[in-house]
Amino acid sequence: MPTSERRQAWRFETGSPLRETGDDLAAEEPLEIRVRGRSVAITMRTPGHDEELAAGFLLTEGIIRAADDVVRIEPCESNEQDNVVNVTLAPEVSVDFERLTRHVFTSSSCGLCGKASIEAIRTQFGPVVSDAVVTAATMLELPGKLRAAQPTFDLTGGLHAAAVFDAAGEMVVSREDVGRHNAVDKVLGYGLLGGLPPFDRHVLLVSGRVSFEIMLKALAGRVPIVAAISAASNLAAQFAQDNDQTLVGFLRAGRMNIYANPRRIECAGG
Amino acid sequence: MPTSERRQAWRFETGSPLRETGDDLAAEEPLEIRVRGRSVAITMRTPGHDEELAAGFLLTEGIIRAADDVVRIEPCESNEQDNVVNVTLAPEVSVDFERLTRHVFTSSSCGLCGKASIEAIRTQFGPVVSDAVVTAATMLELPGKLRAAQPTFDLTGGLHAAAVFDAAGEMVVSREDVGRHNAVDKVLGYGLLGGLPPFDRHVLLVSGRVSFEIMLKALAGRVPIVAAISAASNLAAQFAQDNDQTLVGFLRAGRMNIYANPRRIECAGG
Repeated sequence: MPTSERRQAWRFETGSPLRETGDDLAAEEPLEIRVRGRSVAITMRTPGHDEELAAGFLLTEGIIRAADDVVRIEPCESNEQDNVVNVTLAPEVSVDFERLTRHVFTSSSCGLCGKASIEAIRTQFGPVVSDAVVTAATMLELPGKLRAAQPTFDLTGGLHAAAVFDAAGEMVVSREDVGRHNAVDKVLGYGLLGGLPPFDRHVLLVSGRVSFEIMLKALAGRVPIVAAISAASNLAAQFAQDNDQTLVGFLRAGRMNIYANPRRIECAGG
Repeated sequence: MPTSERRQAWRFETGSPLRETGDDLAAEEPLEIRVRGRSVAITMRTPGHDEELAAGFLLTEGIIRAADDVVRIEPCESNEQDNVVNVTLAPEVSVDFERLTRHVFTSSSCGLCGKASIEAIRTQFGPVVSDAVVTAATMLELPGKLRAAQPTFDLTGGLHAAAVFDAAGEMVVSREDVGRHNAVDKVLGYGLLGGLPPFDRHVLLVSGRVSFEIMLKALAGRVPIVAAISAASNLAAQFAQDNDQTLVGFLRAGRMNIYANPRRIECAGG
């Protein structure tokens, strides 16, 4: 499977109208790792070198130590999307499945068992419903406002941040965390615990990249517009399209790419 | 709890001797979320706003929808490290614990149940043993070599990378992935599946930040030196110190910070 996907995108640069174009997005797909027929982990990964990923995962979980511990690692033949690998271990390798499956929350993980679960989530939450519109000029001001609200990043250079803004560009809340998903959970939790109205006319801005999981969290929070300083994955873009979310990437230096539902970004001259 | 920690560090800049100093590192600590007395998630987070984190987590998992669903969220009183929060939900909120605990692999998660498990891991793998030494000049060349081996990042701007180098700075393998932990698993899996000798005189370089989990994976792979283009967390530094790993952060633009065991970096003039 390819490591990137070319998708439709709309590019905005200050002073120019919105321009439809294409962009290459990093590929993100679920991979299920099975050992002796049992599912031990699901990770959101970029396809390719899946056997290495499975081997490295089992090594770093302390299950295997050397090449001899592995008889073979191969794609599950009945899975045409190549999203399952079967690991056959040497008979003498002992596996504590309970410990492995209980304590393993895989790396860039998503809490999902593949595409069927992604579909189930869509059904659970339903698409966002919002006629909110934000001007491109307002969008372009958000990164500076987020940056000004990152005191611990200033000190350490080592924290992600997330913030919610209203449609006029006023910051409602911002939070920092070593985990980017945690930063998003914190801003959404702030709204819920504070009894605020839903963020359904708002923008969620994250300091880094947007994976599928961030779009999922935004959907649960009913936030119609998600923007990132850095890149979006192809699965994030597809999820946004499927759930009527607006997705903006590379929001910086007077420009942005829109990967889904551009109608909510009002571009002067566009 | 504070969101950063000042720790001992050694700073190297080209043309100057190694200088002992202090540096502020982002705080990373495990948080266990309990619902109705049952543990539903462990996440590695930056302390602070833990109630929001728990609420946002349950919102995005589809368990709660509004403030009324939550009676209270409070730290576990018997846990003096403030690493457990108890969530009391309204009686009418139904929780499918099996689904929640099975499918939830929390965000920046680590597969660990707090500090006791971190200690157990140390015992499982034992500290690294390596008298490898790499010159500072060699270290400074590694980011450029990694950057040259990131074809999909060139295309998308959206992938993490990890690579293993020998002590002379020769690249053994590099891999890209949307998940930084996956990229590390892939390079370690490459060595294992290829039957290569252990990477016990090598450097693991990652394109982004170093959290505790990356140090754990390096420990399992017996890699003595871990370097990052960006920041390290305080828990990564502490883990490195405890397990005799050398940890380098902010390796870029002719300089680096060493956060643990500087003896493996040979600095001319130092």
